[in-house]
Amino acid sequence: MAEHVRVGIVGLGTVGSGAYRLLVDSAAHVARHAGRPVVVERVVVRDPHRPRAVAVPPGLLTTDIGAILRDPSISVVALLVGGLEPARSMMVALLESGKDVVTANKALLAEYGPELFDLARRHGRSIAFEAAVAGGIPIVAAIGECLAANRIESIRGILNGTSNFILSRMEEEGADYTEVLRLAQAEGYAEADPAMDVDGTDATQKLALLTHLAFGTWVPWAQIPRRGIEGIDLDLMATARELGYRIRLLAIAARAPGAGGGGVALRVAPTLVRLGTPLAETRGAYNAVSIVGDAVGRMFFHGLGAGQMPTASAVVADIIDTVVGRAAITFRTTGMLETDAPAGRRLEAGMVERHLLRFLVADRPGVLARIAGSLGEQGISIASVIQHEADNATGAVPLVIMTHRSPAATVSAAVDAIDRTDVIRGRSLCLGVVDD
Amino acid sequence: MAEHVRVGIVGLGTVGSGAYRLLVDSAAHVARHAGRPVVVERVVVRDPHRPRAVAVPPGLLTTDIGAILRDPSISVVALLVGGLEPARSMMVALLESGKDVVTANKALLAEYGPELFDLARRHGRSIAFEAAVAGGIPIVAAIGECLAANRIESIRGILNGTSNFILSRMEEEGADYTEVLRLAQAEGYAEADPAMDVDGTDATQKLALLTHLAFGTWVPWAQIPRRGIEGIDLDLMATARELGYRIRLLAIAARAPGAGGGGVALRVAPTLVRLGTPLAETRGAYNAVSIVGDAVGRMFFHGLGAGQMPTASAVVADIIDTVVGRAAITFRTTGMLETDAPAGRRLEAGMVERHLLRFLVADRPGVLARIAGSLGEQGISIASVIQHEADNATGAVPLVIMTHRSPAATVSAAVDAIDRTDVIRGRSLCLGVVDD
Repeated sequence: MAEHVRVGIVGLGTVGSGAYRLLVDSAAHVARHAGRPVVVERVVVRDPHRPRAVAVPPGLLTTDIGAILRDPSISVVALLVGGLEPARSMMVALLESGKDVVTANKALLAEYGPELFDLARRHGRSIAFEAAVAGGIPIVAAIGECLAANRIESIRGILNGTSNFILSRMEEEGADYTEVLRLAQAEGYAEADPAMDVDGTDATQKLALLTHLAFGTWVPWAQIPRRGIEGIDLDLMATARELGYRIRLLAIAARAPGAGGGGVALRVAPTLVRLGTPLAETRGAYNAVSIVGDAVGRMFFHGLGAGQMPTASAVVADIIDTVVGRAAITFRTTGMLETDAPAGRRLEAGMVERHLLRFLVADRPGVLARIAGSLGEQGISIASVIQHEADNATGAVPLVIMTHRSPAATVSAAVDAIDRTDVIRGRSLCLGVVDD
Repeated sequence: MAEHVRVGIVGLGTVGSGAYRLLVDSAAHVARHAGRPVVVERVVVRDPHRPRAVAVPPGLLTTDIGAILRDPSISVVALLVGGLEPARSMMVALLESGKDVVTANKALLAEYGPELFDLARRHGRSIAFEAAVAGGIPIVAAIGECLAANRIESIRGILNGTSNFILSRMEEEGADYTEVLRLAQAEGYAEADPAMDVDGTDATQKLALLTHLAFGTWVPWAQIPRRGIEGIDLDLMATARELGYRIRLLAIAARAPGAGGGGVALRVAPTLVRLGTPLAETRGAYNAVSIVGDAVGRMFFHGLGAGQMPTASAVVADIIDTVVGRAAITFRTTGMLETDAPAGRRLEAGMVERHLLRFLVADRPGVLARIAGSLGEQGISIASVIQHEADNATGAVPLVIMTHRSPAATVSAAVDAIDRTDVIRGRSLCLGVVDD
């Protein structure tokens, strides 16, 4: 067998500890796949004296990333700290000192991807980031390599385990959002500050990375229309179910029709997904991705999208890929992709789909006619209507309308216009609908 | 962009035509992923004058594989003919004349894999075969690369679309096996001679390849215990459903407990799969694979496992992988895998699982006690029993027993012993049960 490869790990949190454990406990297995032993040479931590679940020999620990930067024997580094800084400066320093980098930090890549990728290419280095999207599900490899012969038509993903856990539990236990969030925090499925998970930020950052791989275009993640799950209530879930759907926080990238190849429509939002389809059946903290390619048809992937060992599995697979040279090749070819969709058309191209609208309206004659009329004027045609008895406490009636396929922008404008009329008694909701 | 890569295609059947179409129609897309244009230089066919759905310039067609073998400008060849000969001789000739090979021929690799892989390695060439297992589902890459950090615990796959189509249709339409097979043939989901699909041969050959990738061991496919779907009737399906299961032709490779790391238990057979699990919900001509890795947990993949364009998608992805150099790396590292399971223990290690037994018994007192007694003597404990009214025409009563977890060999021996008694009126059935 060839000489040892020496790797560094920066950050010994959940994922870092998992990666360390896997590299040590499965050393023989990893060596067979890497063609040579892979040895952890240095682990950079903030506090070397903190008690840890994983037993790292004290001699390996350091607080100084310089110990890795200055050691030419370390060729691959797993950068496993979260957030933007100091992660960004560390990545820059690692690339500049000639290290190939593996990372799970989606926020960092979504924010600074173009410049970091560019820097890596200028230094002849690679950045591998399978662990940054959907944890153990090999979706980065699937899109970037396995489906390379396909023009990707659409990607739909449940990319955030925390919010899927919350939505599943709300439905299964009939408990409301706040209650389930507390439960999720107690059970470790949600962070103390769950904002990035429940408001769709995390899923949106992952979608930006997948969009880059699938459509060859960088979209700043903050420009992607995004809505979280905070507004989802049990009434809405019950209505969805009555219509044959389940609510999922779905990240969608879809080629939109139009001149010049059209654009790519992007969105992260709670979406109605038809019961019985694999995305609707994805429960708990699982992630799932459904991809349509022009040749391969519809593919579906399901697995643990977060958690220590699933994410570590992807990190170590990326370390192996880097050691054997596959990562360098993939990183190089990914850089050659160019968008099929002109950049300017990426976001204006909206989804065209069915929508579920819920209005809280005054309980008086003529309201349904007025709302239906407003929709009709915008060319939005109605597929079905559900109106139950009025809630006596508020005097407001939930009026639920399922539309036929219409452009999202048109529907959204029509809802805004209706919201400005005097028949509306509360916040209106508008959710996209996915039937296949 | 770098110089053109010249590829050859041998065989212009369904898959060959699809691969040709994809390489031509998506040439710009393929070139971006391959880092340079990929040009089809030669297509070897049996009859150049036969009318075809795909328009290949006559100058490219030849009946002589020598035209490829003698042309040093052709570096990659897609060998897309089925069966063992002349496919094997062609593969040998291609490797010996320095070509990297891409193939979809699972029968060839399952039969001659070790010698062909060895020959390729001796000539410094690669064989890529993503298309040979589960069509467009990137399961070969998933196991061989993406899950490389994992010790694979089990693989369960629906690897044959034809038999899954037949089982789904039988259940959905309440039509019997023969009727649905005729329908499947009429609709193009089954070959005129469907033997290899319905008797489990095709799935078993694919399982042998996956076993090699996941466990680093070659098992001659003919040694894998195998049963087809021919014996499945609507009564059995109804009973399965009553118990909360659906019947699927499942290919299973599972690490079996035991001394020295245990062995790998292998089997292809109709199996009860719990309703609501992804494998049970895999319908029609789709394929699906569920893999458990020690780090990643359970992963699930679902997609079109056969058909022209899904298979061509995998072939062209392999061509791209070969052009950029990833295939050479993967092929080299795959060769370094060694089994964790001693070869001699691979097959004797049986599955330990729950079983569904169906006996057709004489309608007289004491029969249930006698059968339950026989099972008890072998240490097989009974989880539940279903016995409906006797069928007056035959006087035989179907007695259905669900066992607790027991070694397959023990259960099989017990059923054989019961079959030799005078209470049995027809063929007994024994199916494994998968609950998760």
